[in-house]
Amino acid sequence: MANVNSHYLKLKAGYLFPEIGRRVSSFLKDNPRASLIRLGIGDVTQPLPQAIVDAGKTAFNEMAQKQSFHGYGPEQGYEFLREAIVKNDFKARGVAIQADEIFISDGSKCDTGNIQEIFGSQCRIAVSDPAYPVYVDTTVMSGKTGQANEKGHYDNIVYLNATKENSFIPDLPNQDVDIIYLCFPNNPTGVVATKDVLQKWVAYALAHKAVILFDAAYEAFITDPNIPHSIYEIEGAKKCAIEFRSFSKTAGFTGTRCAFTVIPKELMGTDDAGNAVSLHALWLRRQSTKFNGVSYPIQKAAAACYTPEGQEQIQNLVRYYLENAQIILNGLSSQGYDVYGGVNAPYIWFKTPSDLDSWSFFDTLLTKAHVVGTPGVGFGPCGEGYFRLSAFGDRENVEDAISRIGKMPI
Amino acid sequence: MANVNSHYLKLKAGYLFPEIGRRVSSFLKDNPRASLIRLGIGDVTQPLPQAIVDAGKTAFNEMAQKQSFHGYGPEQGYEFLREAIVKNDFKARGVAIQADEIFISDGSKCDTGNIQEIFGSQCRIAVSDPAYPVYVDTTVMSGKTGQANEKGHYDNIVYLNATKENSFIPDLPNQDVDIIYLCFPNNPTGVVATKDVLQKWVAYALAHKAVILFDAAYEAFITDPNIPHSIYEIEGAKKCAIEFRSFSKTAGFTGTRCAFTVIPKELMGTDDAGNAVSLHALWLRRQSTKFNGVSYPIQKAAAACYTPEGQEQIQNLVRYYLENAQIILNGLSSQGYDVYGGVNAPYIWFKTPSDLDSWSFFDTLLTKAHVVGTPGVGFGPCGEGYFRLSAFGDRENVEDAISRIGKMPI
Repeated sequence: MANVNSHYLKLKAGYLFPEIGRRVSSFLKDNPRASLIRLGIGDVTQPLPQAIVDAGKTAFNEMAQKQSFHGYGPEQGYEFLREAIVKNDFKARGVAIQADEIFISDGSKCDTGNIQEIFGSQCRIAVSDPAYPVYVDTTVMSGKTGQANEKGHYDNIVYLNATKENSFIPDLPNQDVDIIYLCFPNNPTGVVATKDVLQKWVAYALAHKAVILFDAAYEAFITDPNIPHSIYEIEGAKKCAIEFRSFSKTAGFTGTRCAFTVIPKELMGTDDAGNAVSLHALWLRRQSTKFNGVSYPIQKAAAACYTPEGQEQIQNLVRYYLENAQIILNGLSSQGYDVYGGVNAPYIWFKTPSDLDSWSFFDTLLTKAHVVGTPGVGFGPCGEGYFRLSAFGDRENVEDAISRIGKMPI
Repeated sequence: MANVNSHYLKLKAGYLFPEIGRRVSSFLKDNPRASLIRLGIGDVTQPLPQAIVDAGKTAFNEMAQKQSFHGYGPEQGYEFLREAIVKNDFKARGVAIQADEIFISDGSKCDTGNIQEIFGSQCRIAVSDPAYPVYVDTTVMSGKTGQANEKGHYDNIVYLNATKENSFIPDLPNQDVDIIYLCFPNNPTGVVATKDVLQKWVAYALAHKAVILFDAAYEAFITDPNIPHSIYEIEGAKKCAIEFRSFSKTAGFTGTRCAFTVIPKELMGTDDAGNAVSLHALWLRRQSTKFNGVSYPIQKAAAACYTPEGQEQIQNLVRYYLENAQIILNGLSSQGYDVYGGVNAPYIWFKTPSDLDSWSFFDTLLTKAHVVGTPGVGFGPCGEGYFRLSAFGDRENVEDAISRIGKMPI
């Protein structure tokens, strides 16, 4: 009898974005001519930069010739891409990461979820509330939690409240935790962590032999020169942190799929007898057994992000989205909303008006303004009463959305 | 304290192919001018068919324009690809599979491993011995086994011997098992399963409420019209089987990465209380939480396999490799080797000469003939004394390898 993974059955409701999709489809079925503006799912809208397109096409041409054809690549990714990452993303910021500490993958969503596999089910996980839902859902799926309570919080996860009171930067846990998901610039709140904040977390992790899973998918949107882009800018972080990066938002790769994960070789977990075990070695074993590397044309396309033309083009892309963020931030502020994020991040987080709950405001926005956003409660109970808009739309849609929200009857 | 997944620590030695890589690198370091012929890892060598290359480039061009840009795609894959699969791979053979029963992925290695996640750790798994190492390794990693014994067999896995005596088709287990990995055409032995054989397995699975994980990655190499390409050609299989397919060998996608998995909606597992649970729903939850779909240009490239030009080109590719298989099969036979497979499959399986163990023959072949193959024992203890050659080489290399083996002093 094929028993199913009972941990999956603990999961509450659907994953957030499919649920949004269902509500939008249902609305469109009844209102087929509505002109929707989608600022919900955080998907990019601007075309792939030309340098990246050209590199992808050239790689496909290579695949058409026997002499330059590429079969199985290295599971960790091609050297040309890992070296470019080391040089541009780390060395340029004074961080010493080696190419073989980098694992190229097809997405940070995959990596931040799959990383759970190398940790024991007895680990206690801390996540901020609100947080990207993948952290919690994959913790549940991997068997590290009990059941959810009526609030939607799972037993054995430590939730770190990110509220207006603490400026959406959670305090250190007041109990022992083993693994801590941190995301800065934050999804969904758009806040960033200063060096001081990160130093506090690294000190906690070192003292508790905990591991920080640092999601830096939005680091390209940091405009403040004093904000760290990588957790490894903090002394000691290589002994306690794994970092996740992505080309999705930085270079428009949401449909092209490329990302990477950094696991320093000095980072250790512990076995049941308390001996140190290399997390790099375990992840390498995981990837070489259950993954076959990223498509060669896609890795070539990603590497083009680091050429001079590529750099200029992706910086233009990032600037475009940051200007959108500014428009949303200023627009909502001037309409009297209580607004956060949007300066060093492509997300804008705000309090719903008239104390509406998040899903009610979602439905109001959808049906009255024909704008799709993301209900804050979808990121955790502390997100209730908040709402997220993404800056990844077209300029004219972003401007139109703000104008529609201004005219919307609540 | 971050405890590691203790199940990973049960794994013996390195994964087979990295170990081959290490021995080859070490040989090449000492013999930098040796002209190696690689018929080991089963990687394709011929260029990507032009129809596929053209489709990939056209898709990259679409990504360069705002009107035709693609961001996040559906986690299950684009409709255009799933519909083409339904029509060409299933409907054409009289099998009724729906498009939403198909999950596009970046590789069968990933899928055959990740599928373990949706099953409970109490499940008892059966694998043939020898078998593709991913089946066993991912079973261990997922916590469904005890420790390995000195033979390399793990506690709580049921090994089904595939030996010369049973023509490398394992007998049904004589105990209760819950999940059964089957691979036909088989890797590594190259044997195929008749309709009668598959019927027997489906009957077993239905009677025991077991699930068959059917790896059909090599179905394109079937030449005998009486051999089923899909397990769903067997009555009742939709109630007991998941099927894995890949573009890797069929269309030269080992470096391009695209595959798919079929989970019929009527296929059920059971929860702890004995209630039926849809495996399709669980896998959809897994994929939508931990995966973000395959790159748009890659899905477009894969869809080109189903155009008239694509079909002709990939059939030529398959024919080329099958002719290689014939050359290896005939060559080794005429040299007195005891040889199997190679007719409906791209793998040739043979007894090592002079009762050499598999790794000794690997080293002999490498150092004396400069040919890289795969030691049979790498696929399981029953593979000891056997060896696998792959037909995925260049024609002249294949011919040269057979001639070198003929002259090799043992």
